[in-house]
Amino acid sequence: MEHQELIFTNEVAQAIDTLAEKINPPKVFVLTDTNTSCLVLPRLRQVSRTIAEATAITIKAGDMNKNLESLSYIWEQLCDNGATRKSLLINLGGGVVTDIGGFAGASFKRGIGFLNLPTTLLSAVDAAVGGKTGINFNGLKNEIGAFKEATAVIISTAFFDTLPSEELLSGYAEMLKHGLIAGKEIYSRLLEFDITVSDPALLLELLEESVMVKKRIVEEDPTEKGIRRALNLGHTAGHAFESMSLNRQSPIPHGYAVAWGLIVELILSHLKHGFPSNELHRLASYIHDRYGVLRITCDDYPELLGLMHHDKKNENAGDINFTLLEDVGQIKIDCTCNEDEIKNALDIYRDLMHI
Amino acid sequence: MEHQELIFTNEVAQAIDTLAEKINPPKVFVLTDTNTSCLVLPRLRQVSRTIAEATAITIKAGDMNKNLESLSYIWEQLCDNGATRKSLLINLGGGVVTDIGGFAGASFKRGIGFLNLPTTLLSAVDAAVGGKTGINFNGLKNEIGAFKEATAVIISTAFFDTLPSEELLSGYAEMLKHGLIAGKEIYSRLLEFDITVSDPALLLELLEESVMVKKRIVEEDPTEKGIRRALNLGHTAGHAFESMSLNRQSPIPHGYAVAWGLIVELILSHLKHGFPSNELHRLASYIHDRYGVLRITCDDYPELLGLMHHDKKNENAGDINFTLLEDVGQIKIDCTCNEDEIKNALDIYRDLMHI
Repeated sequence: MEHQELIFTNEVAQAIDTLAEKINPPKVFVLTDTNTSCLVLPRLRQVSRTIAEATAITIKAGDMNKNLESLSYIWEQLCDNGATRKSLLINLGGGVVTDIGGFAGASFKRGIGFLNLPTTLLSAVDAAVGGKTGINFNGLKNEIGAFKEATAVIISTAFFDTLPSEELLSGYAEMLKHGLIAGKEIYSRLLEFDITVSDPALLLELLEESVMVKKRIVEEDPTEKGIRRALNLGHTAGHAFESMSLNRQSPIPHGYAVAWGLIVELILSHLKHGFPSNELHRLASYIHDRYGVLRITCDDYPELLGLMHHDKKNENAGDINFTLLEDVGQIKIDCTCNEDEIKNALDIYRDLMHI
Repeated sequence: MEHQELIFTNEVAQAIDTLAEKINPPKVFVLTDTNTSCLVLPRLRQVSRTIAEATAITIKAGDMNKNLESLSYIWEQLCDNGATRKSLLINLGGGVVTDIGGFAGASFKRGIGFLNLPTTLLSAVDAAVGGKTGINFNGLKNEIGAFKEATAVIISTAFFDTLPSEELLSGYAEMLKHGLIAGKEIYSRLLEFDITVSDPALLLELLEESVMVKKRIVEEDPTEKGIRRALNLGHTAGHAFESMSLNRQSPIPHGYAVAWGLIVELILSHLKHGFPSNELHRLASYIHDRYGVLRITCDDYPELLGLMHHDKKNENAGDINFTLLEDVGQIKIDCTCNEDEIKNALDIYRDLMHI
């Protein structure tokens, strides 16, 4: 995988124009969704020459629109507006935009260059970095896609003033995950920071620390043959929560699904690998207080298990694959759990969440 | 790009089973079109354990079905039949099957392994090797896709007895192209061989020689930043002929389009870089006698030029990019021609073809 440039800055316009000058594409496209086209694009057009001159492509906001229809629309717009192999696509938005825009970039004329400019905390800390691109398909998350790094990613907290606190919390769950993977020092600093109080400068610092945790792991294993699975912590259960909610037409934010998924998977970590019970309780109460609760009942278990079985991480049909922890910073990838163990963990999740 | 295994053999079943044993996938899928599902799959099921046990996915035959609808159907079938990241997809068919199957493999769950088993001469010599995968989109050839090598390609002349002579001629045009690129020795041997007379053993030899021409070039430049463009000889004009015919609902075989495209581009080679006139006339009469003629008039020029402008190989809107030859074996990539030069070449093409 090619080298990817990561730029941490709150001088965004300058960073874009400098990059565009270096890359020197004959034509620039900027992909937004219906949120960023109103909230961010006009601001950037005023200050960045590159964005001012770019052809805009806008898709509908929301994870339910990270689908083949939107992808096909982007391809069409690129086609009809004369994109060539040397064109540059700038993905300006949250994870939906960077995921689908990344895959559009990876597949249009078998690949054109693209920049990610994440406008949400979640996409800054997760989707925009690491080369996973794709769309949802057939009711399954990220079922179709490619591993393809953005040419560069510009990470900034400058646009977070446009975000509701729900969005910030959603992103913060991925930062907590990186903390859990990285070790007690980073993790504790995160538990002490209050994401709901605006502090863009300190947040950019914590964000850089967090993104670098991910970057180091991805560089070691770009196509997820091994250690990259550490980043799946919380995501096997989390994706099942997310897919179930999506199937029921009541989508939940990705980071909330991950927050609740982290609890389920730390329970499994505790049951199978002795993850300390006090850390489990500390996180459960932190998440309960800030993220609230996803109410599930025993009747949901078969659907949740079915969704976990469908997960890309499973190599055969029987058991379900998890990344678990022996302690904060102590990763165990490729842990298989059977259905009874998972049901047990879901029971305990409901206890801890007072459901 | 990963190393790709190329196997030249007429013991196909044995080659498949040996490969499958080595790769050891939990589940195998075999992609066919409505031709190979009748003509080749039943024969292979009887002799190959791997194919006998594989889940078949069948798409409609024909380049007009190398589209998003068929791709989406393949993704769905993989999904619904429990494909995982470790599943193996075997693409059994012509270029449509290996192109679309390759892109399905490259994009399903962000990439699963796939084998190509070309059943036509054209796909054996061209599409199945070299990692170009994709679909047609928005009326344009191969507009969407990925660079992704098959894990292995099994090349054989064993199935060519199922092919009409039109198909053999279509493939032979790409072999002629490889000959023109490689040099006089290979090229002359090709002009002496009669593809319409069945000689599977000698054809397998010529085919291996021809595929190795392509393989060497692709290894040097997998994502077509430079010398790989040598393989585009005949294809800028050829793709325009092919797209125009497709748009008019009267598709022509790819190799025929390339054969006629080779004439146009050797004319340009002669006009701009002194390609010898006797070689041009030799090829024009060879192609005229075996492939017949694509009848075009001046009224078609604007459409043809428009299609050439849309070609992936063009980096900016003005001129059109070609690979040309100074002589047999003397390649010049990145030759730009203006519209007048191309119109002139099309006039001469019509002369040489007695239109």
